[in-house]
Amino acid sequence: MASVHIAGVGSTSFGSHPSQSLQNLAVIAAKAAIADSNIPIERIGAVFVGNFVGGIMMGQELLGPIVAANLGISSVPALKIEAACASSSAAVHLAHELVRGEIHDAIVVVGVERLTGVPREAFTSAMTAAIDQQQEGIHGLTFPGFWGLVMNRHMHLYGTTRAQVGSVTVKNRQFGITNPLAQFRKSITLDEVVNSALIADPVRKFDCCPSTDGAAAVVLTSEALARRYRSPSIKVAASILVSAPVRITDYAELTIHDGTVEAARRAYERAGIGPADVDVAELHDCFSIAEIVDSEDLGFFAKGDGGPGVVAATSGSPMARVVINPSGGLLSKGHPTGATGCGQLYEIVMQLRDIHPNQVPGARIGLTHNGGGTAAAVTVHLLEAVQQ
Amino acid sequence: MASVHIAGVGSTSFGSHPSQSLQNLAVIAAKAAIADSNIPIERIGAVFVGNFVGGIMMGQELLGPIVAANLGISSVPALKIEAACASSSAAVHLAHELVRGEIHDAIVVVGVERLTGVPREAFTSAMTAAIDQQQEGIHGLTFPGFWGLVMNRHMHLYGTTRAQVGSVTVKNRQFGITNPLAQFRKSITLDEVVNSALIADPVRKFDCCPSTDGAAAVVLTSEALARRYRSPSIKVAASILVSAPVRITDYAELTIHDGTVEAARRAYERAGIGPADVDVAELHDCFSIAEIVDSEDLGFFAKGDGGPGVVAATSGSPMARVVINPSGGLLSKGHPTGATGCGQLYEIVMQLRDIHPNQVPGARIGLTHNGGGTAAAVTVHLLEAVQQ
Repeated sequence: MASVHIAGVGSTSFGSHPSQSLQNLAVIAAKAAIADSNIPIERIGAVFVGNFVGGIMMGQELLGPIVAANLGISSVPALKIEAACASSSAAVHLAHELVRGEIHDAIVVVGVERLTGVPREAFTSAMTAAIDQQQEGIHGLTFPGFWGLVMNRHMHLYGTTRAQVGSVTVKNRQFGITNPLAQFRKSITLDEVVNSALIADPVRKFDCCPSTDGAAAVVLTSEALARRYRSPSIKVAASILVSAPVRITDYAELTIHDGTVEAARRAYERAGIGPADVDVAELHDCFSIAEIVDSEDLGFFAKGDGGPGVVAATSGSPMARVVINPSGGLLSKGHPTGATGCGQLYEIVMQLRDIHPNQVPGARIGLTHNGGGTAAAVTVHLLEAVQQ
Repeated sequence: MASVHIAGVGSTSFGSHPSQSLQNLAVIAAKAAIADSNIPIERIGAVFVGNFVGGIMMGQELLGPIVAANLGISSVPALKIEAACASSSAAVHLAHELVRGEIHDAIVVVGVERLTGVPREAFTSAMTAAIDQQQEGIHGLTFPGFWGLVMNRHMHLYGTTRAQVGSVTVKNRQFGITNPLAQFRKSITLDEVVNSALIADPVRKFDCCPSTDGAAAVVLTSEALARRYRSPSIKVAASILVSAPVRITDYAELTIHDGTVEAARRAYERAGIGPADVDVAELHDCFSIAEIVDSEDLGFFAKGDGGPGVVAATSGSPMARVVINPSGGLLSKGHPTGATGCGQLYEIVMQLRDIHPNQVPGARIGLTHNGGGTAAAVTVHLLEAVQQ
């Protein structure tokens, strides 16, 4: 089995790109990643596009061959991979496994989405394509509704407070100010969060990530190719994708997301490390409460300690050494669903290269966590800066 | 690298399944394939779902985790793979490569689509998601339009006649009569084909495949697992997926489909055989002219000889030993787009097991050819019956 590296990353800004097509956004990010890798384009053996609702929102499928052709890459496997909001990290997982299995030695993975500029109803309806329509969609469940249930339950079981949950948004907006790729670059007060419009009780407007356009890409390569073209590169110490409960009725406990727990367990085992070794993490804060649940399930806090944990992180006496979502996270950097997974990897690569605008000093090990549906498809990636 | 086998196949009938959801159809086919393989379900290492327009037509994405959960399979990579009408054969290719690279030793791949019961305009509009909207869709190109151009050009360049093209439908409807899975099980006359309603000159109604619901699945395994659980199994001698021109302006010549030519070349080279060694083929006859073009590009006939070739095949003096589309093909068995690739593999496996209702006597080597978009994503699989 080959060791797998990330030799290049690229990204558009996240936000509103009304004049750009899906294919254009994808090509911009993929070209940047290939250029960043220094790898000649003719060495790219496959093109994977992570995308969630390009069909529903833009009437465009077949993104694999279209993006490949527009990159000037021909006669390679070129596919779209969909796992809802985890589409592009799932595509990275597949690419990782094909490099690890020595089938290909260089694959470009690009995640892309266009979500802005449509009526809110159309957006909400498109997002529910990641809910089991047959068993839950018919009852009207939406993602704010799901996370409202989770938030209520977390507050009930662990005494988590409204202020603690809201401080996730405050923290991540603060990080967003200095991330040039972020959609929201202004601070917000806790009062503004907890008094914003009620969406799905107790979830309020500023507990929710925005709708976002954008694309991000990574080039995965064998260690040999990385050494040749892009040294030092970033080693993928673990790439795990698991399926998990798809309906709330499948959950034993709504505040414990089995997919995240299991993906994290396997990732730490594969990399031979634990959560205490992680310096920086980009995790799936689609809603403020999600950061609390996820940071517990990833092992950064004991279950129920995520609320105090996030407050401590912002008050200078952190309960965990890991810095969470210094990109601004989905809440502030934005959430172009199909692009988010690659966007998180972009951020961690910048951290491990020591050139991130919100640099975590001395960061050597980074984690990304990306979830699709009601945490029904979960990826965890562990990246490591290596001296070559 | 491991040798890859197909240990199990399953399929619903192809046709109209108005009361079945995407997830139910997929589960029926996948369960049948797993049962057919004799492999305990806990040995399945990944679940890939090939699907094209489940988002646009049914508002349902996230099919990987949903189908996995409904099969009772948890904590595995579970994804949707999309390459338009080649979605499920592209998913098979990925699964093949992961078994070949020894990442997994058993993967279930299921293709599924629901296309019936909607207004014709909604169907046509959904299908054009496989056309580059930015460059061609805006001009109104549809698939009947594309194949109308190809048909005109083939008739102009090679003297192919209207009757020759129409006889593809006549032949494939004849095969459909005795395939219990086929959507159309009645014969048709050449007069009926060439006098049917004009769709996109010179393409007429019965030159077009129908809109179809259905699902089909295959279980890919390592040779060791196949030997243990399902002997004799079917060996995958080659699994090739290539991207190719996505717009007609990218074509050097509309009657030569580079993706098919290149995929076939690589497949024959990988398997160490040539087109003359193929006993039976299921190829992508989405339109009658497509069977002629594809059978030429796959090397069964010289370019331009496909028209006389199909007539000879039906008159008892075949120009090639291969029997083409004994399932009835897309024209008669039907074309549930995302399911078609797995459906073709199902058919060839039945041939190589010597239990097909339209059995090709002594068939030992079979080929499938599946195309997405304007032949923009093309797979060729070569299967071989092995004595174990």
